[in-house]
Amino acid sequence: MKRVMFLVLISLCVSMAANAQTRYVKVPAGYLMVLRQGDDLFTQLEAFMLKEKAPAVNFTGMGFVNARFGFFNQQTKEYDPRSFDNVELASMQGTIGWQQDSVSIHAHGVVTDKTFQAYGGHLLGATVSTGSLEIMITVHDKRFERAKEESIGANVLQLKD
Amino acid sequence: MKRVMFLVLISLCVSMAANAQTRYVKVPAGYLMVLRQGDDLFTQLEAFMLKEKAPAVNFTGMGFVNARFGFFNQQTKEYDPRSFDNVELASMQGTIGWQQDSVSIHAHGVVTDKTFQAYGGHLLGATVSTGSLEIMITVHDKRFERAKEESIGANVLQLKD
Amino acid sequence: MKRVMFLVLISLCVSMAANAQTRYVKVPAGYLMVLRQGDDLFTQLEAFMLKEKAPAVNFTGMGFVNARFGFFNQQTKEYDPRSFDNVELASMQGTIGWQQDSVSIHAHGVVTDKTFQAYGGHLLGATVSTGSLEIMITVHDKRFERAKEESIGANVLQLKD
Repeated sequence: MKRVMFLVLISLCVSMAANAQTRYVKVPAGYLMVLRQGDDLFTQLEAFMLKEKAPAVNFTGMGFVNARFGFFNQQTKEYDPRSFDNVELASMQGTIGWQQDSVSIHAHGVVTDKTFQAYGGHLLGATVSTGSLEIMITVHDKRFERAKEESIGANVLQLKD
Repeated sequence: MKRVMFLVLISLCVSMAANAQTRYVKVPAGYLMVLRQGDDLFTQLEAFMLKEKAPAVNFTGMGFVNARFGFFNQQTKEYDPRSFDNVELASMQGTIGWQQDSVSIHAHGVVTDKTFQAYGGHLLGATVSTGSLEIMITVHDKRFERAKEESIGANVLQLKD
Repeated sequence: MKRVMFLVLISLCVSMAANAQTRYVKVPAGYLMVLRQGDDLFTQLEAFMLKEKAPAVNFTGMGFVNARFGFFNQQTKEYDPRSFDNVELASMQGTIGWQQDSVSIHAHGVVTDKTFQAYGGHLLGATVSTGSLEIMITVHDKRFERAKEESIGANVLQLKD
């Protein structure tokens, strides 16, 4: 019983330490974010947007991840998914805006495995694998909303001056 | 006859609306550009350069496109082309300078299809497919010219202070 | 004998001219670097960091290269390498910090050959092939150090305010 409580205490401490960990710092060009093993990419980007009240951002990134991509199926109107585990994130580019008060993340990436072959596309999600994920975030001064445009059947970032 | 005139009028209006559409806005880091289905990437980048009289720019981007790549053939001194339609543009990076008063675009990209396999290289051109194409443009304060350097047989961006 | 001395003199001049060549210029967003055939990517990035005393940077790039990638082997704790010669560098992203007073470069890239197939991952090194390599460098105002984190067995960029 004591042992269980001890383990619970330890894991609480580890979890608190993980949450207290600095995941991004301000730099002149925006923010530099470093995620570590187990961190969820979209969760951390969303937390950043809410905490910093960023109107909209562009970002690039690279690291070592478990990634899930989706290719939009015009018939089913859903993303056909495929996962790639323990792969290098060779490249990532994305934008974040808002959609009905929710953070709206759009990210594309390219991953490579031990054969160096490359795969990628529209990111449905990613977690950091054994290693880290470095992200450069550029902040805009205008709030951009994403809205469904029926004519092309896709969510599109709405620009406004 | 009336019906034909009506259709012509409608398509004129649609086309004017499309041209009047905001394709980019100024942000602290440069410009954010959003292209839509049917837009031609190089045409829009050239229009941007001429309208904004940008001395030179770097850009990154991602979206859903029809892309045409070329691999330089050292024998024929021409680009062997290959097209990829309805693919995710997983990554794009480029620079734009000037060459003898013409806009000179140099862009590389990576595209992925429904198998998530990645292809890419030197972009000869691209149009937006069903969706959009988001581009982040960083503007420089110096005019950079591209010039053919015979020693390496390639067009190279000329730096100057 | 005279001919040999003449050739030595000529190659000395060429080499001095190459070294004197402007490889990067300051722009509002940071620095734009252009490397040419034969230039070594990591050597030039390191020279830049030391000369400009940059605390830390992010960079993106593209060009035509000979690249060497490595995939980390968890068993041997070493990178299994593979080289790709005369390929388009379709995309490159990286960060540079410091590790025990040495420049610490972390770069990922995607390359494509004449079949347009894409490969890539963690870059062990690259030289410019017949053409050039254009790099956009964003400079941070804080010195970031990379340190080995035993818990994940990887070098991680340490953030600090």
